[in-house]
This record gives sequence, C-alpha cells and structure tokens, in this order.
Amino acid sequence: MKTTDVLIIGGSAAGMVAAVTGKSSWSDKSFTLVKKQKDVMVPCGIPYIFGTLDSSQLNIMPVDNMMAKAGVESLVDEVIAIDKKTKTATLKEGGIIGYDKLVIATGSRPVLPKWLKGADLDNVFVIPKDKTYLDNMKEKINGLKKVVVIGAGFIGVEFSDELVKSGHDVTLVEKESCILYSAFDDEVASRIGDILSTRGVKIITGNGISEVMGSEKVEKVKLENGDTLEADAVILSMGYRPNTELAVNAGIFVDEGGFIAVDEYMRTHEKDIFAIGDCAQKRDFVTRKRVPTMLASTACAEARVAGMNLFNIHVVKTFSGTIGIYSTAIGEYGFGTAGLIERRALEEEISVITGTFEGVDRHPGNLPDTHKQMVKLVVAKYSGVIIGGEVIGGLSAGELTNVIGLAIENRMSVNSLLISQIGTHPCLTASPAAYPLIKAAEVVATKLRNL
Amino acid sequence: MKTTDVLIIGGSAAGMVAAVTGKSSWSDKSFTLVKKQKDVMVPCGIPYIFGTLDSSQLNIMPVDNMMAKAGVESLVDEVIAIDKKTKTATLKEGGIIGYDKLVIATGSRPVLPKWLKGADLDNVFVIPKDKTYLDNMKEKINGLKKVVVIGAGFIGVEFSDELVKSGHDVTLVEKESCILYSAFDDEVASRIGDILSTRGVKIITGNGISEVMGSEKVEKVKLENGDTLEADAVILSMGYRPNTELAVNAGIFVDEGGFIAVDEYMRTHEKDIFAIGDCAQKRDFVTRKRVPTMLASTACAEARVAGMNLFNIHVVKTFSGTIGIYSTAIGEYGFGTAGLIERRALEEEISVITGTFEGVDRHPGNLPDTHKQMVKLVVAKYSGVIIGGEVIGGLSAGELTNVIGLAIENRMSVNSLLISQIGTHPCLTASPAAYPLIKAAEVVATKLRNL
Repeated sequence: MKTTDVLIIGGSAAGMVAAVTGKSSWSDKSFTLVKKQKDVMVPCGIPYIFGTLDSSQLNIMPVDNMMAKAGVESLVDEVIAIDKKTKTATLKEGGIIGYDKLVIATGSRPVLPKWLKGADLDNVFVIPKDKTYLDNMKEKINGLKKVVVIGAGFIGVEFSDELVKSGHDVTLVEKESCILYSAFDDEVASRIGDILSTRGVKIITGNGISEVMGSEKVEKVKLENGDTLEADAVILSMGYRPNTELAVNAGIFVDEGGFIAVDEYMRTHEKDIFAIGDCAQKRDFVTRKRVPTMLASTACAEARVAGMNLFNIHVVKTFSGTIGIYSTAIGEYGFGTAGLIERRALEEEISVITGTFEGVDRHPGNLPDTHKQMVKLVVAKYSGVIIGGEVIGGLSAGELTNVIGLAIENRMSVNSLLISQIGTHPCLTASPAAYPLIKAAEVVATKLRNL
Repeated sequence: MKTTDVLIIGGSAAGMVAAVTGKSSWSDKSFTLVKKQKDVMVPCGIPYIFGTLDSSQLNIMPVDNMMAKAGVESLVDEVIAIDKKTKTATLKEGGIIGYDKLVIATGSRPVLPKWLKGADLDNVFVIPKDKTYLDNMKEKINGLKKVVVIGAGFIGVEFSDELVKSGHDVTLVEKESCILYSAFDDEVASRIGDILSTRGVKIITGNGISEVMGSEKVEKVKLENGDTLEADAVILSMGYRPNTELAVNAGIFVDEGGFIAVDEYMRTHEKDIFAIGDCAQKRDFVTRKRVPTMLASTACAEARVAGMNLFNIHVVKTFSGTIGIYSTAIGEYGFGTAGLIERRALEEEISVITGTFEGVDRHPGNLPDTHKQMVKLVVAKYSGVIIGGEVIGGLSAGELTNVIGLAIENRMSVNSLLISQIGTHPCLTASPAAYPLIKAAEVVATKLRNL
C-alpha cells in the first residue's frame, strides 16, 4: 500500500494552495494530491473561454507545474472512499493510499434543479468546472444564436457579457429584483445592470424560470409570469452545491446546508481530517452565521490556514470568519463588494449607517481612461466599525475592494479609515482630496456625529 | 475688520480638504480660505500637462466649486503676516482678517540650488505649482528639442516620460545609483528604469549636475564626472522646500529642517494655530524620525485630522506618523511603494526580512492586458510586522499599494496578511492561488520559521 504523510483530495484552487503552503510549512513530510482531471480549469476564468479567450486550453491552472516545484506528488485519479479508522483512501484506478493527515478539497458542482421541467433537453447547460463538458458546450453554443441565461449571479452576468461579445443574442433572467442581488445593494446593482444592458444583454428581473420547452432540443423558456422566450440554448447558473458525498459516506460530519463542518483551523470533527474550499462550512465574519460563500479567494485563505497548521498549530491564527469579497468586470468597468451589503445587514437586524460618494478614478478627471468611481460603505451604527463596502469604477475597482476588505478584516472604524494614508496618483487612482472611499467614510462620520 | 472663525492659508490639497472636513465637522463656524492663485493646479497632475493633457486648464482643482458647496468663503489673495497675539492675518490686497483658529497650509516650492552655476540661464526651469509659470514653461519647451531633466524622483521621472511622449529628446540625470532612489530598492528601481528606457528616455545615474552652460540660453549641462550633454532646456527637479517664511516671521516654531513643528493633531507650538501639508513637520510611522515626505495624500490625511479637531478633540485619533505611499505610472505600467524600503530600513538599523514574488496581474495570464506583477515586502524580523512594500505591475498597482499601506497602518503581521481574505477576479487581479502580495508574505513567513 502506498502511503503519504498528507493526502489532499482535489486539485483546484484550495487543494493546490493547501499542498503548496503545507509542503512549504512541513518540508520533511510527504504530500500527495489527487485530482480527478488532468487539466484543471482556472475556476473564475471559465466565463472568459466563451468570448475573450480562444480556447479552454488558455484557462488551465498550472497545477502539475506547481506541484512539481513544491515537491508534491500529483495523481490523476478519484478518491471513491475514505476509511477514517484505518486512515486510508481508496482510488478509483489506483488502489489504496494510507495517510497521516487528510485534506478534503472536493469543491462544488452546479445546481440542476430537479423540479425544472425540460432541464434534460438538448442545449440546456449548467457550468461545471469540467474542461470536457465546457469544450463540448462551447462548440454547441457557437453554432446557436439565442441564449437564455438563468440566474444573474456573478457567473450568469459574466457568461452573458462574454456571449454577447462572441455574437450571441443573450437574455439574462433573474428572479430577484435586480442582478447580482446578494452581492450588491439595489441602487448599485441597478447601475451595473445599466452597463450590462448597454453592452447588449437583455435583462429580465423579478421573474424566474418555470419550464424549459422543446421537443428534443430547447426551443423556448417559460417564465414564472407565463411569458415565453425563444431560446436556442439555455444556461442554468442557479448556484452551486458542495461536493460532500465522499465525506458523508466516510462518516465525516456534514451540516444541514451540506457543507463539511470545520473549526477555525479548518479541522473537521474527525481527528487528522481537514476540509477547505467550497465543500467546507463557512461562517460570516460579521453575522457569525453559516453562509454558503463559494469563492476561490476564500478557499485559498482557508487552504493556507489548513496548510500551515496540519501537524500542530504552527501559526496561532484562527480563521476569523468569511468576508465575502467579490469583484467582476464588464468591459472597461470594474465592480467589487466586500463584507455585508446594507440590505443583508438590515435582514440580520444590524443597525447600520451607510455613506456613498461618487467621484472619478483618475485626477484630474480629464485624463484618458477616467471612469466614475462610486463607493458605498456600510458601518455598524454604534461602534462605527466598517462591515461592508461596494465599489463601481474602472479596472482598479478590484484592488480598491481589497482595500475595503482589509479595513473590514482589521475591524477599522470609519474615523480611522477616514484619516488613513492612501497613496494616490493621477493615472492610477482618484484624487487624495476626493478619494471616494475616504469621502464615503466622511459621509458616515458626519451622520454618526449628528445622531 | 473682517473676522472668521477659521482662517485657512493655502488653497491646494491640504487647505481645501481642511476647509471641507472642518466645515463639515463644525458647521456652525465660519470658514475662510485664502489662496494666492485663482486657478490652483492639481499638484500631482502637473507632469501630465506636458504630454497627456492638452492644456493646464485641464489640470485645475475645483477649489472654488468645492468651497462654495462646503459653505466656505474663498479669497484670492496672499497672507503676508500673521499676528498670533491679536489673532489676525494681514492680506496683501485686502486688509486684515481676524480669526479664532488658523490653519497654515502654505505648501512647498522647488529647490533652486544656489551653488549651481548657470541656473539663471534662459530655458532652465524648476517645477513650481504655479499655472502662469508652467504655461510659459510649456510654451517655451514645446519649441525645443533636447531636454535634460536633473533629478529622478517621481516628478523627474514623470516629466521625462511625458516629454518623450510629446516628441522631445530627453535625458534624465540622477546622482544616486538608480532612479526613484528613495522610494524603491535598487533591484526594483532598476526594472522601472528599464521600462522608462524602453519608452525612449536616456537615463544617466550615479552622476549629478555640476554646471549649466550657455551664453544667454542654456546650451550644455556639465555633469560631476566632467561629461557634457547638449541641452536646449534643463528642468531641475531636485526636491522641494517647505514654504514657512510666513510662520517664521510670525514666531511660530519651525524645526531645523524648515518644517513647522506640529503634534499628532497637527497643532503648532502656538495655541489655535495648526499646520498641515508640505509645510508641516512629519514623523515616520516606523522609524519615528522626522522625514521630509511631501505627498498630497499625506497632506489630505493631515488636513482631515486638523479639520475634525479644530475646536476640541472631536475625534480622538492621533495621526500615527507618516507612511510614505507613492505610486506612479509609465504608460501601461504602474508602480507603488508604501512604508520603508529595505535599504532605508538597513540604514535605520532595523532588522528586516524581505520576500519577493513575481506573478501576473490577471488570471489566467492569457487574458488581454496581463502584466507581470511583482511585490516585495519588508518585514520586521522579530515581530513579523510588515513595515514596507513595493509593487511593479499594471495600472492596478496603485490600489494594490494601498492594500499594503493599510496593512502597515494596521500593523499587520506577515502571518495575518498571508491568510487575509483577498478578492480576486480574472480581469482585475492576480489569481488567489498566486496573488503576489500573499505569496511574498509566504516567502517571508517561511524565512521567519527557518530563522
């Protein structure tokens, strides 16, 4: 029987980072990573193989290369069973591996709603992180004109924009009142929706799908209000579910949401077994409730925590809860959100004050490539602590969202933030005198003083 | 005699922000701002009126507009004397103003070295923040071919790049061993130098100017090693000095470096008199020594502290010292630096460990507009606290530098940073699995473990 000190199941972002960080932290231990596919997709890059990138081959994570560099053995196989008593894993193709520490990073898969009639028709697609499926899907969609995308989360929005770019006639359908509903407040999301519309995506909100219609292939989509849309293809981007059958079958505790239960060091309820990434339980940084956040960036942070602390608590630092930090781009526009949006804070009965400021992301605003830049901050009313922020801007919006994320993670108050030292440059950022993040903090601080 | 509750002297970034923040914090008080010029230049935008922008008219700060909106009276005049006993200021044109609180934001002016022979020849320029001077300078330089820029700080570098862009033959001369010497470590600066060279700027380092030669107009520049360069124009960007004659004459304490001494609330040694911006003393965040940092962003942070705390300590938050955060761009490349560079840390006898990681700023790296992204972190050896960072990348480098700045300001350790939650997106940032900032932290953490 083959043995390894650390066995990592899953070769996407979480597994790969756990292997690299783990091996760098415990260099005398042997590490083995098992991944189901030879070529692993960059998960967030998947939409871009439908427009910007010519082929899925340009969207492959250099897992083998990174594993070789790190000194981690990498196998293409599938773990079909874990025996926590004998500390062994059974491979589909290659026998049994004994381990000392096990890291489960089995990820997630797209929701295919069972109630949806017609979901099994030809040219109805979901978006798994599977190169073969995606290559086949792309080939089929290439020859089709009218595409209906169901679900306007980040992936639905990004697919819609890419498919318009590659010449399709795209309708994006969302049952909530606005696109990107859980990531942005309504007034922010509606502006992003306007930009997406200008790019040619037809957007229908407040209306879900009720049926996919057609004989063999999809021909129409029927919506909840009875309207029908002609469709040559339908893409269902209705969320993802954790892949935890393997864990369940091994008797590892999985919560009622289907996520593997973990503590702040990413340890499951079973000794020597860790879980990270989309398959692992998350707790919101502010509300302390479980959240179904699935983000490669969160997965990588979790992977680092697990990797560093595999054999003992090497770095005493707990994972303090998930701050959902999302960003996306539509053409030359960038958007980001970190922490709680206002709507969600109110749902959670958190007293908040918000502040919004709109400026420009260059200074003077006459410079080329200047975009409007808007920042909205969500701040806990009595402590003044920043718990969320949203950004609309140009392509620097992604890193600006990370500035907000770090403010949230450090539990900065709005008063601290507003006298923070922010570097600025005409061609790279807003003006120091009208930097929207700081000005939004100023708006909140003024409201707090006048309470 | 005219009276005002708060008198602000200076209408550039610091004065303007102090007025806006002050008025918003103390809305029942009257505020008056006196500025010497009607049209105030965006200070950091000045280089760009020599290439990217057609005219200085496109680089004007909307001071009047912002003052009107804030409810602050704005006068174009010059304060020529302050009487701290009678609490009055004498204007050049318009009589005397009585004040309760005074904010001095008189800024800085370019160094014109007295020892430099030929500095008074025609077509030898400095770079003041003065529209009339700059308009005249631009008109003259437009007709000239060979420009020699002396001093490769940010302004010298930016002027050189802009002048090449507008068709000039530019030589940049720096007496230190590399360009941007005080802002970047040698190996980083040398890469920025390579990019600048590729753009057509001829760079001479390790060689200062010794003389400007010519009869009426400049004809040649003589360097310290005896070499001469032909020159139709010379731009001296050899640093700035605080404008503090007004303060000195009023008996306000000015330190040996020429800066107005201030405490952490930006109060001078005189009751009811504040000083902010380039004319005010700064203390380094890490070394606690006085530093001659002159940055609009620092000035704005100081202005907010002063503005909020004019009449009493309204917001108990001290200004914790200056973190120099600089960023710049050369074409599509962005660069930034925050806190201490390694060379400076060693000069200050601070034990540091550094980590550098180079990746790309998109993921996959096959996406359009992908640039290499390099991050170097400087970390205090025994505490693991981050004290500096440098970035080379694309145009998101400015905001990424602010992520590092916020980590320094929050005194984050490298272990905290490396498990921070960073948002990522294919079109906006590096990959979560190979985000250079986090990977650089990982390099340092590994070194610290192996000490």
